[in-house]
Amino acid sequence: MDGERPPSAAPRAEAAPETVARVRVIYGDTDAMGIVYYGNYMRFLEVGRVEHLRALGKAYAEIEALGYQIPVAEVRLKYLRPARYDDVVEVRTRAEASRAAIRFDYRLVRTADGELLAKGFTRHACVDSARGRAVRLPAVLAELFAARTDPAKERNASACDR
Amino acid sequence: MDGERPPSAAPRAEAAPETVARVRVIYGDTDAMGIVYYGNYMRFLEVGRVEHLRALGKAYAEIEALGYQIPVAEVRLKYLRPARYDDVVEVRTRAEASRAAIRFDYRLVRTADGELLAKGFTRHACVDSARGRAVRLPAVLAELFAARTDPAKERNASACDR
Amino acid sequence: MDGERPPSAAPRAEAAPETVARVRVIYGDTDAMGIVYYGNYMRFLEVGRVEHLRALGKAYAEIEALGYQIPVAEVRLKYLRPARYDDVVEVRTRAEASRAAIRFDYRLVRTADGELLAKGFTRHACVDSARGRAVRLPAVLAELFAARTDPAKERNASACDR
Amino acid sequence: MDGERPPSAAPRAEAAPETVARVRVIYGDTDAMGIVYYGNYMRFLEVGRVEHLRALGKAYAEIEALGYQIPVAEVRLKYLRPARYDDVVEVRTRAEASRAAIRFDYRLVRTADGELLAKGFTRHACVDSARGRAVRLPAVLAELFAARTDPAKERNASACDR
Repeated sequence: MDGERPPSAAPRAEAAPETVARVRVIYGDTDAMGIVYYGNYMRFLEVGRVEHLRALGKAYAEIEALGYQIPVAEVRLKYLRPARYDDVVEVRTRAEASRAAIRFDYRLVRTADGELLAKGFTRHACVDSARGRAVRLPAVLAELFAARTDPAKERNASACDR
Repeated sequence: MDGERPPSAAPRAEAAPETVARVRVIYGDTDAMGIVYYGNYMRFLEVGRVEHLRALGKAYAEIEALGYQIPVAEVRLKYLRPARYDDVVEVRTRAEASRAAIRFDYRLVRTADGELLAKGFTRHACVDSARGRAVRLPAVLAELFAARTDPAKERNASACDR
Repeated sequence: MDGERPPSAAPRAEAAPETVARVRVIYGDTDAMGIVYYGNYMRFLEVGRVEHLRALGKAYAEIEALGYQIPVAEVRLKYLRPARYDDVVEVRTRAEASRAAIRFDYRLVRTADGELLAKGFTRHACVDSARGRAVRLPAVLAELFAARTDPAKERNASACDR
Repeated sequence: MDGERPPSAAPRAEAAPETVARVRVIYGDTDAMGIVYYGNYMRFLEVGRVEHLRALGKAYAEIEALGYQIPVAEVRLKYLRPARYDDVVEVRTRAEASRAAIRFDYRLVRTADGELLAKGFTRHACVDSARGRAVRLPAVLAELFAARTDPAKERNASACDR
């Protein structure tokens, strides 16, 4: 249940684009320890990936309208420093897709002081809503991430043009 | 938006039966004031009415299977004393139905010291799931509450038998 | 999520100024009926009043730093139409204060079609954090609302002066 | 809701004892996909570890009264099958401690059909509340887990006695 998650992603500069969504912590996010409840970060991650998808060009609602869902299959999150009431937290999100899964990576940063509060990832299956089972990513989704997560390919392409 | 809430129910002894559901406060229920977040009481009320329905003889899931939903149309809750982490809270629930609405009344009491923490009500419409609109309570629901909320009628009936 | 707060303000003098905060519905707000869970509206109301206070000139965190808390003493909310996933909901908030209580009034409107989704109020006590008990509103808070919530009285007063 | 905690206990000596807490899924736990929202499982895990600690002999509130907190430093959870409205979910929890951390392992099982719904762990630091920083586990906590998580050592000890 433990092994570190993948080498994944590109070590090079052309990595998947990062988007930034902001959430302001309300009392409803906090708990009696005076900090954001660990479970409520899952809401922040959702805001991050929803805005990431929107930035890529497909609102999640559109993906559903196409007949697909991408439920969370796994989450891993490390809590490094507590977030507190009224903090503005930036959810910096990247995504990459394989044949049958999408992985979002998150870094949560407090705007005021730039502190890294938490980092982790979610892994998602792609489900055909009508058939109710996991399927390979349809072209419309694969392309959404491919164009972005493999800019190396793009560069090669443009290199050929010269 | 204000008027005090109803003549509610019978002032006499035969009032609608009260059920008691218990919830133990977790960190996820509390906020940075050190007390249960006001919005999380809505979860407690849901536990109260779900267990009340079950006690009347119909799990809410069964009501849905019959083709009906009873969404919340209104809530009113007064917060009298704070509930804290690890408190066991009793949700004491009564219900009564009119032609087209169901009303649940709640009193939330801390088990340890008997303190009344909050009291209020929710009012629910009855929605025909297929048609997607509000309807009169179907017999199966009306009877569920009638037998209980109008014991006066029962008494009269039995009085006639003598 | 990221409660945007507005210049908004009142066009005329007589009514308490209304502010508009916006929240976008995420999956975490919804329930298996496909709509926003009734309890999660309480989060939206919090966003509304927090941004309202900020617009009046005092972040809630500043109020706490002054030694006061304004916990919710009562909530009433009517649910008129369901809010759904990805809806942007405007929380239109006004406030007025009496000697020992603050009341916020809310109207929740879907941005896309202008539909009124819910309306209601919360009533708040003012608690001296050090003494842990309810007190009259301190001047700093009373003035925050007074200038705004009873301009009529002010006008009358100045009319008498002439 | 009302995390029932169990006699449970381990059949054999080698493994940390497993406790079983039960939660019934309410609408407030679910989302518009018709299943439990991934973030709300964090509440279930909290119920599991709180009842585990209670079974070991120390309510979390007692640990706090001793001047310690054990905030979540990391969570990992795999979602294998969806939980739905009204399901009763068993949170089967084990724990083990190292010098400066406590790890809880969870398996979530649907009571009705025995399906494994999710599995994962949380890792916790031990914080000295007064000093506000991470410390080694104090004896009172270390013993709580030691006696249970290393019964092999105990057996060896008693074997030597013969």
